[in-house]
Amino acid sequence: MREVLAEAAFQLFIDHGFERTTVDDIVARAGVGRRSFFRYFPSKEDAVFPDHERCLADMTAFLDAASDGRDAVDVVCDGARIVLRMYAANPEFSVQRYRLTREVPGLRTYELSVVRRYERTLAGYLRRRWDGAADGPLRAEVVAASVVAAHNNGLRSWLRSGGEGDAEEAVGHAFDLVRQVWGGAGGSPSAGADEEVVVMVAAKGAPMWRVIQQVESALRND
Amino acid sequence: MREVLAEAAFQLFIDHGFERTTVDDIVARAGVGRRSFFRYFPSKEDAVFPDHERCLADMTAFLDAASDGRDAVDVVCDGARIVLRMYAANPEFSVQRYRLTREVPGLRTYELSVVRRYERTLAGYLRRRWDGAADGPLRAEVVAASVVAAHNNGLRSWLRSGGEGDAEEAVGHAFDLVRQVWGGAGGSPSAGADEEVVVMVAAKGAPMWRVIQQVESALRND
Repeated sequence: MREVLAEAAFQLFIDHGFERTTVDDIVARAGVGRRSFFRYFPSKEDAVFPDHERCLADMTAFLDAASDGRDAVDVVCDGARIVLRMYAANPEFSVQRYRLTREVPGLRTYELSVVRRYERTLAGYLRRRWDGAADGPLRAEVVAASVVAAHNNGLRSWLRSGGEGDAEEAVGHAFDLVRQVWGGAGGSPSAGADEEVVVMVAAKGAPMWRVIQQVESALRND
Repeated sequence: MREVLAEAAFQLFIDHGFERTTVDDIVARAGVGRRSFFRYFPSKEDAVFPDHERCLADMTAFLDAASDGRDAVDVVCDGARIVLRMYAANPEFSVQRYRLTREVPGLRTYELSVVRRYERTLAGYLRRRWDGAADGPLRAEVVAASVVAAHNNGLRSWLRSGGEGDAEEAVGHAFDLVRQVWGGAGGSPSAGADEEVVVMVAAKGAPMWRVIQQVESALRND
């Protein structure tokens, strides 16, 4: 029933526009009563994004179950991938919805609220992982925002291309940039006197991101 | 007139609640006609945030005038400070508005839209600065999101404290974290064979952010 309503609503939004479609139009097309609509969706906007609530629940469950032995930044990247897969599972619908959302200010605002909820969920996980660390809450918010921005950059590229190509690859590439600078920050290992060391040489004045790339490859590879 | 309307509106929102206050109430208190309100504010929400449009214009002008010789990340941090100063210029109003915004979902959504516009403005500047660089647009979006998250973390701490303490200091500290990992990425210097080099030693398995701090202090200080 929920799916039937969402499909009826979406088709009407595409055919006649979001603003001009009423809830009465939707229930007439779906062949149900008006109250059924509001049982499933608090508003017309919610019917455009029927999967975000489930996706948020999936993300929360994934983060709750993640091992503390894993790098915290890797975990939140994987958490964000749950959202990506929801989009990638239905390219045609996702692309149409992307175009619709660009045109309707109310839908863009709704989307911002949803994105903010994902960001808060990821930040909450990082805050727990970095509890007691210096600037833990600050780092949690900045890293969550970075991960969400990287995710959305990859996702948008894929949506703009009309859903062609590999969405996972686009987002994975974007995550690499974030993991390069923030990854390992929540790792448990701490340096001991007898640990292996790596020596690196960098030019003064080299761009910081390039130095980080060098340090990372030196630290990660043998 | 604009200020008189905004003040009347805000006092009524505080005293009677945002939802229960009508535009008629506002114009009655301000002693003007209903059309005057809509000449200055498209909606009730806009009257709660009367300074953001000017602040966005100031930010845009600041970025347009910034020298390309400056580090791009430093420039966007300074651009974001324009927003901070708007809040800090009027602590009592800012704190009251913060509390009001927490309570009214419509105002939170409005605020998200405004924050997004600041973020896009900063990202647009970084995109121009990093035009042609590898992953320039991606880095621009991730860094802009980091700067905005850091700014909002510092700003929120200050607002939660009731506007006590130094807002600039809180945000400056948050920006340090972002500049540590992203700063220099847009700088012009490139490493030449005859440049000074720095050698550093890090323990394998050390958290990346700690390594970055070490690298940074080695690169920046003599």
